[in-house]
Amino acid sequence: MFSMQPIGYVRSPYGQTSEVPKGCGAHHDAEGVVEILPQFADGLKDIEGFSHLFIIWVFHHSAGYELTGVPPTDTEPHGVFATRSPRRPNPLGLTVVQLLGRDGASLKVKGLDMLDGTPVLDIKPYLSSVPMEQVKRGWLADAEARRDQSSPEK
Amino acid sequence: MFSMQPIGYVRSPYGQTSEVPKGCGAHHDAEGVVEILPQFADGLKDIEGFSHLFIIWVFHHSAGYELTGVPPTDTEPHGVFATRSPRRPNPLGLTVVQLLGRDGASLKVKGLDMLDGTPVLDIKPYLSSVPMEQVKRGWLADAEARRDQSSPEK
Repeated sequence: MFSMQPIGYVRSPYGQTSEVPKGCGAHHDAEGVVEILPQFADGLKDIEGFSHLFIIWVFHHSAGYELTGVPPTDTEPHGVFATRSPRRPNPLGLTVVQLLGRDGASLKVKGLDMLDGTPVLDIKPYLSSVPMEQVKRGWLADAEARRDQSSPEK
Repeated sequence: MFSMQPIGYVRSPYGQTSEVPKGCGAHHDAEGVVEILPQFADGLKDIEGFSHLFIIWVFHHSAGYELTGVPPTDTEPHGVFATRSPRRPNPLGLTVVQLLGRDGASLKVKGLDMLDGTPVLDIKPYLSSVPMEQVKRGWLADAEARRDQSSPEK
């Protein structure tokens, strides 16, 4: 077992899980702040040069896990490691945010999908992307195609 | 504090830290296997439809942390959250790998940068990319530019 401690907390507009956009075509452009605890603030040196960051965080309201489940985007069950379900063996979340600015130990960011008060475990610079034409999105692409077919007016 | 348990282990060609390519222009195309423990194998259902995966893992040979340090790519110190240093408050690693195939609970992957035996905490599908023309790479871009200037033959 490995013990992890919060390095900070998210200040987000989302107070409850039901408010976070989910499912096909969900857009995450919520803005908020990642507040780093004073004892870790020196670790932010030079972070403001990066446009995007990985935030690794804890689904702190999630209890237990399911190895398969039906995600909000589909009607079929998929393995938890093929989804972003909060009910994971280790309740880790991962979000890419855009860094809008830094004020001391507070990072103003865009693209949050976590709840207010979410504990943050780590921040890493986003350095490279897989070209989208090389990314295959598995069951999610199938689910989106089915949705588009059933809503031809879109 | 949050307790995390391994869901599996990495089988990688790298036995020691010194063998892992580091620094500017390091290429990570090593192939290996992520072996998921039998009790979590059902969580892999439908993962084979995804071309790329996020692997969240533990720097299990790393002890303690430094809030600032000089990375192998530069001569200047930077904050730990602006680098991929293993000496982090929470020793979490994050790697994007290409999924080459699945055999039961074993995922054959390409792009490993972790040591053989590395504990894996989570796997998530890679769903979207930030267009590279929107990514700013901070001190790393500066360090690369300095390196290119000092090696004009490259």
